[in-house]
Amino acid sequence: MVNVAVIGYGIVGSGVVELISRNRTSISRKTGDEIFVKKILDIREFPGDINQEMFTRDPQDIYNDASIGIVVETIGGVKAAYEFTRRAFETGRHVVTSNKELVAAHGPELLDMAAEKGLSYLFEGSVGGGIPIIRPLNQCLAANEIKGISGILNGTTNFILSKMKNEGEDFATALKFAQENGYAEANPSADIEGHDACRKIAILSSIAYGEFVDCRNIHTEGITGISTDDMEYASAMDCVIKLVAMSRRAGKMIMARVSPVLIKKNHSLANVEDVFNAIVVSGDAIGDAMFYGRGAGKFPTASAVVADIIDIVNHVSRCEKGTWEKKPYNNVIDIGEYVTAFYVRTSVRNSVEAKRFISEVFKGVEFIRLNKPGYDDDLVFITQPCKEKDFYPKVDKLKGIGSIRNVLSVIRFGDGFTNGN
Amino acid sequence: MVNVAVIGYGIVGSGVVELISRNRTSISRKTGDEIFVKKILDIREFPGDINQEMFTRDPQDIYNDASIGIVVETIGGVKAAYEFTRRAFETGRHVVTSNKELVAAHGPELLDMAAEKGLSYLFEGSVGGGIPIIRPLNQCLAANEIKGISGILNGTTNFILSKMKNEGEDFATALKFAQENGYAEANPSADIEGHDACRKIAILSSIAYGEFVDCRNIHTEGITGISTDDMEYASAMDCVIKLVAMSRRAGKMIMARVSPVLIKKNHSLANVEDVFNAIVVSGDAIGDAMFYGRGAGKFPTASAVVADIIDIVNHVSRCEKGTWEKKPYNNVIDIGEYVTAFYVRTSVRNSVEAKRFISEVFKGVEFIRLNKPGYDDDLVFITQPCKEKDFYPKVDKLKGIGSIRNVLSVIRFGDGFTNGN
Repeated sequence: MVNVAVIGYGIVGSGVVELISRNRTSISRKTGDEIFVKKILDIREFPGDINQEMFTRDPQDIYNDASIGIVVETIGGVKAAYEFTRRAFETGRHVVTSNKELVAAHGPELLDMAAEKGLSYLFEGSVGGGIPIIRPLNQCLAANEIKGISGILNGTTNFILSKMKNEGEDFATALKFAQENGYAEANPSADIEGHDACRKIAILSSIAYGEFVDCRNIHTEGITGISTDDMEYASAMDCVIKLVAMSRRAGKMIMARVSPVLIKKNHSLANVEDVFNAIVVSGDAIGDAMFYGRGAGKFPTASAVVADIIDIVNHVSRCEKGTWEKKPYNNVIDIGEYVTAFYVRTSVRNSVEAKRFISEVFKGVEFIRLNKPGYDDDLVFITQPCKEKDFYPKVDKLKGIGSIRNVLSVIRFGDGFTNGN
Repeated sequence: MVNVAVIGYGIVGSGVVELISRNRTSISRKTGDEIFVKKILDIREFPGDINQEMFTRDPQDIYNDASIGIVVETIGGVKAAYEFTRRAFETGRHVVTSNKELVAAHGPELLDMAAEKGLSYLFEGSVGGGIPIIRPLNQCLAANEIKGISGILNGTTNFILSKMKNEGEDFATALKFAQENGYAEANPSADIEGHDACRKIAILSSIAYGEFVDCRNIHTEGITGISTDDMEYASAMDCVIKLVAMSRRAGKMIMARVSPVLIKKNHSLANVEDVFNAIVVSGDAIGDAMFYGRGAGKFPTASAVVADIIDIVNHVSRCEKGTWEKKPYNNVIDIGEYVTAFYVRTSVRNSVEAKRFISEVFKGVEFIRLNKPGYDDDLVFITQPCKEKDFYPKVDKLKGIGSIRNVLSVIRFGDGFTNGN
């Protein structure tokens, strides 16, 4: 019999408790053992909940209970979760979590601590919800040199972008709908500003490249600047706009970025709609492999957490000791060095003059016309790939020119980025 | 240091040897150990091959070498592979294979034998080439009750169907092209008759449902009867024709089938083109998750084989003891009981009379017209879902009726099947 304590009885935590109970028979068959939730730590009250006798508000009830071997941390956030996790390792418990914020911030330290004690720290639920991605990266693709990862890693923003594209809604309306329907939080900034996706690509990259990638070093842009006009142009170019998190191995360094991108409709990530996530992993042996499914939600995420528990019970878990090496320098190449093509939408006073000037500043641009009323003052163009640090000063040159009223939006074009060096 | 012997130096076997050598550094980092190929068994000669000193034609050179801990069986086929595998277990070696034929035929016995000896028998490479699917099913989705699996599991047939659809070629021409370009074997029957896909869905189903599913009990149809005319009608109905292998849990029994199906273009499997494979797994907690990538080929498959070797070295492998229970009865429901809709293409002498007769025999059919020259004598219809055992006698009624010249093709419509009971 394996006893588990769940810290944080929110959406994921309650899903874990329910799933362990619901699929007890098949889980027993797979483990040859029985898994029980013995304690649930939460400061809130849950009147009417069937698990009343398990609730406690005192962490000591967990740490002093020698029968508890595994702690599930599903409270989220960094501070309290960090303390609970350290305490669990200090008292000899394995820890399973879906907390990407904590793993992205303190992964190397917590993995080291677990490894020193011969314990497991598993977090399949921290990226991609129920989609198996961390274990496949760690194990199934272990024979590969991973060259790159691209993914739609945040369901909230993908839901909003899908709604803008399919129903012509503006960002604010789509966000409000997402909030009213439980697809976005009351404070949506972690999602819409790209930070959630950034933490997730940092975790995946740390696994893939065998060294810690600090999310604070990853250039991150969200979707708040995307307009329905940009969606119209994207569609006219047979493209869609997606918030894509990407990283690439570049010699001894790593390139990584989170930003909206225009990608062609036949791109593997283009048809990932609504709250779904998808992750494309490129390996030297396997080529491209894609993993697709529900990136969030009570039971998908609980499914990943319980799978980690089962792995611990089956003794197949493995600490990542030695594979998340923390480099003494910033191992992420500065975004300014990446070579990227851009989509630029401007508002112009004089189209002919503006075109001439733009063509002078950017060599080899392609102008895009939208044959629709209301877009007469727009001038949109796609640049040749160039270093980002060379691109932005050129954009600045467009501002304050008589023929150009305004630069309305700048979005990266295509899924590529290369190291210009 | 871990020494490996490779039995069978064909496409996959030679890929395994090359991959272990090429990615030695990163594999060492992940295992904390070094993996070496010490012996290669093959009766053929490989003049000029850099691994000359490892070759042997005598299996005893492997079995008598106490330093060899893992045997990689990549000769394929059943008879010799079975003997080599048993012998490896008898002499205390772990076995890794990509041999779906052997696993589908003797999986329960070989898994039992390995488990009794405390050894591993791993076969990630047997299904989906490099796509991680067996380990995800076994581990990542272990918290789920698996409800069903659908997949494009054979790259050769998918390549042929893609070529027929995209270039209007007939089956024979597309097959010839596939053979000339290494996408189909000289004797292509295992692929084009559906047997390869059948073995793979049998293996996945055995894992998913925790009981052995014998491929001999799975109704299997190939793609040899698919014509370019059927492709035209599919396109007109916004569908594509794919060879789909499916299984469903149905109470204590299992439903399983391999056959061409007409699926809508927005179906997750519809856009899987050329030699790619994709597998959709439906679980009670995760919903649908899809795994996509190269389903065959030297390095993708070698990637899966080497991942299994790494798992054994890391002691994270797990035998499937007890989870491939062999039932004393046929646990696959007979295809006649499945409720399916059908596409039927007939050649008619008198369209009005034929329609009247067809509508009498099949209630609620939908007729499809192709507005193209040359299809005037065709009459195509889609039936309501009905039990297959009730469907075929009705089709027989159409034959030999004055207004209907011939029944040209019958293809299942939609990805659904339900248990009519």
